[in-house]
Amino acid sequence: MPVMQHYRAALALSSSDDAGRFASTITIKPAPSKSHLHASIPDSSFPKNFVVAGSHCGVKKNAGVNDLAVILSTSSRPAAAAACFTRNAFKAAPVLVSQEVLEKGAGRARALVVNSGCANAVTGKQGMEDAWAMVKATDALLEPSSPSSSGTHETLVMSTGVIGQNLPISKIIAGIESKALTLDSNFSAWESAAKAFMTTDTFPKLRARTFTINGQTFRMAGIDKGAGMIHPDMGPPASAKQLHATLLACILTDAAISPRSLQSALTYAVDRSFNSISVDGEMSTNDTIIVLANGAAADQSAKEIDEEHDRKAYETFREELTSFATDLAQLVVRDGEGATKFVTVNVQGASSFSDAHRVASKISTSALVKTALYGEDANWGRVLAASGSVQLSIPLDPTRVSVTFVPADGSTPLPVLVEGEPEQVDEVRAKEILSEEDFEIKVELGLGKESAKYWTCDFSYEYVSINGDYRS
Amino acid sequence: MPVMQHYRAALALSSSDDAGRFASTITIKPAPSKSHLHASIPDSSFPKNFVVAGSHCGVKKNAGVNDLAVILSTSSRPAAAAACFTRNAFKAAPVLVSQEVLEKGAGRARALVVNSGCANAVTGKQGMEDAWAMVKATDALLEPSSPSSSGTHETLVMSTGVIGQNLPISKIIAGIESKALTLDSNFSAWESAAKAFMTTDTFPKLRARTFTINGQTFRMAGIDKGAGMIHPDMGPPASAKQLHATLLACILTDAAISPRSLQSALTYAVDRSFNSISVDGEMSTNDTIIVLANGAAADQSAKEIDEEHDRKAYETFREELTSFATDLAQLVVRDGEGATKFVTVNVQGASSFSDAHRVASKISTSALVKTALYGEDANWGRVLAASGSVQLSIPLDPTRVSVTFVPADGSTPLPVLVEGEPEQVDEVRAKEILSEEDFEIKVELGLGKESAKYWTCDFSYEYVSINGDYRS
Repeated sequence: MPVMQHYRAALALSSSDDAGRFASTITIKPAPSKSHLHASIPDSSFPKNFVVAGSHCGVKKNAGVNDLAVILSTSSRPAAAAACFTRNAFKAAPVLVSQEVLEKGAGRARALVVNSGCANAVTGKQGMEDAWAMVKATDALLEPSSPSSSGTHETLVMSTGVIGQNLPISKIIAGIESKALTLDSNFSAWESAAKAFMTTDTFPKLRARTFTINGQTFRMAGIDKGAGMIHPDMGPPASAKQLHATLLACILTDAAISPRSLQSALTYAVDRSFNSISVDGEMSTNDTIIVLANGAAADQSAKEIDEEHDRKAYETFREELTSFATDLAQLVVRDGEGATKFVTVNVQGASSFSDAHRVASKISTSALVKTALYGEDANWGRVLAASGSVQLSIPLDPTRVSVTFVPADGSTPLPVLVEGEPEQVDEVRAKEILSEEDFEIKVELGLGKESAKYWTCDFSYEYVSINGDYRS
Repeated sequence: MPVMQHYRAALALSSSDDAGRFASTITIKPAPSKSHLHASIPDSSFPKNFVVAGSHCGVKKNAGVNDLAVILSTSSRPAAAAACFTRNAFKAAPVLVSQEVLEKGAGRARALVVNSGCANAVTGKQGMEDAWAMVKATDALLEPSSPSSSGTHETLVMSTGVIGQNLPISKIIAGIESKALTLDSNFSAWESAAKAFMTTDTFPKLRARTFTINGQTFRMAGIDKGAGMIHPDMGPPASAKQLHATLLACILTDAAISPRSLQSALTYAVDRSFNSISVDGEMSTNDTIIVLANGAAADQSAKEIDEEHDRKAYETFREELTSFATDLAQLVVRDGEGATKFVTVNVQGASSFSDAHRVASKISTSALVKTALYGEDANWGRVLAASGSVQLSIPLDPTRVSVTFVPADGSTPLPVLVEGEPEQVDEVRAKEILSEEDFEIKVELGLGKESAKYWTCDFSYEYVSINGDYRS
């Protein structure tokens, strides 16, 4: 199947020099509604001893819209806490403050406070004071804990929204202290909190599940947000000296796990979930994911899972966390600004995870690949050119590379390039696969046994409209 | 000036979940015509002892459209030749063949043959044979040279167009051998050759100039092409083991310079010109720039410029070549698919050229920056987030970074961020600057004395239309 590198040729060269210029009106294919991705969850699926609330405190103008979320662990023992933060150099104040709380608390915390509508980024000294004020006001909602924790802060903070504007901090503090903030553990409370995370999201992103380790049942709930400025690259606090983010996520579980093992499991999970999604290739100044594990499923004296003492239990937990984080991360891609497609980029046969991940990332951010996805065009030439532009630890051998389009419904995959040789492609079948909302691009490099998946969406007129045309 | 990270918020949150979904028809701002960028050039400006031709041989269907160019040096002494090739792993056959011709010819060559309409990329063994056939047919057009060059090939080859399709090689060979191929040295012949380079270009890209070294006048002419899949990263042959490209460029000069110094000057020039432009962040499989210097301006026995023997003359030549290559490279950005803006990204105060270049590249490829440019929005938050996402050799210090929008007409620049502090921006003045077709985004990092410039365009509805919608 020959692939045109540049389609304007057909237009521009068929008549005058200016034939490639387009008419002033075009019909756009609108992104489908995503509201079916939010549904009710049984109260029993949420982790024990967490209470949550969402409310409108006035960061956003519209009175009916939530902009403040509070999540508290009611276990007296501080939960294990872990986080990954953006690697952007321009880290917002809440990122810097959360890093410090985690560090001083030695990986223990009991609360999370989140506002949307204002990112508290590029806000200087005032921004830091405001983030600390949110921490202290939320600390005050906690029951007194063990003496060992007195004097240290136990709240982590996240903000998302406008850059370069100070928080309306008195409104936020009043919101945290308000008696109208009704903390509860039912679905309605969790939904209300999830709504308070939203900015350009079109639905609240909330999931919960149960899982089993050594015969014991645990629960896990998660909230995240994000639709644009999404290409997170988040690392653990120690390595995060150059980071920043607009993906926000939190995961709460009643499993008991040591802070060190929780951080190590989270770092592993984030590389394979949130650090493997892209909407528009843009790393934000606020990207943050926080996990609290309060151990409330079992007796408070039960031993914490630790990778040194019980490797098997640790690995089970890590797999559960990775799988759950992947579910949450995929919701962000599905809600990507202007997205009409949800595409899995599956790179196999690499010599390392890092190489596979870099090729998958490059394909997932290629403007030419993403516009072809929007156009439902099985354009393997663009997939190949993007793959080849990455400098790998072992150079690509063009004669070993294969590209296949894989439908999501389990029907027969369509090879378009086999070991460097273009296939005669059945265009009708190609159109069938690419007209679906979900499908996979599988790239086999033929260099080794490692693989990585990335999740991306297409690049549509609506993306340009959302991000370029709002003033007109 | 507060900057919204996500503009959909204002829409999505003001009413229902689906309020962010857009109407099915939008009005687009069409890219302006670029035809004024092609104009007549006096015959006397073209370099001596080069003859050129362009014709239609049948790669493209439309009979009136050129698709074959031949450029010959008529000096009996082989010209010094230098090239940079794409770093893409999937190098097209003409790239591999030109690398071998250059290597075996020890940096000497006398001819160049170019076809458009088919890239001869991902074409396996047949593709290599076809590229060699083009070389041999063009070699046969050359007058017999000095005995030393007999047996070696003296033609370099470039192709651009469709990927994954074999060349109609018999038509191309017939075109090269045709008596209708009238080689000449006047403007009309150069224009005809430039037209044969075009694919999605909306105008032929041809420039010529004269320059002086040590009192002697020399001439330089150049042709290039490209509009999409433009983010070249080209290196000299020795380092190009992982490369590939769709920017094509050639520069012909009647200066006399040694092959080694020509390559060194070209590598320097390409980093500051063709490797500093981006239309869509996409590195192609065929990107190639070739320079031939035949020394015809002076006596054939005149000594060649060499960086070891006459550093000053070499540096003058290098500056001329860099300036000329920059002119040619900028034409590609001006003709970028869907481009309505031509924007200079000027990064200053870096600790190295490489750091400055990487920050400039990131800003120039940011989808959020480029859609903001289309929307004429002085969105410094997006410029900052893009800058901060680059890992530099010396980490960025947010309190030292300044961002300024600089109008092209010499009027007062508009600072939007000064040493990390947002300015109160005069929105009317911002709109004035950003509504112009040309302007500059200046970013001062405050870390050192090195700088780099990048040239980019905006991201428009038309880009999506050209690359995503052609089948509908």
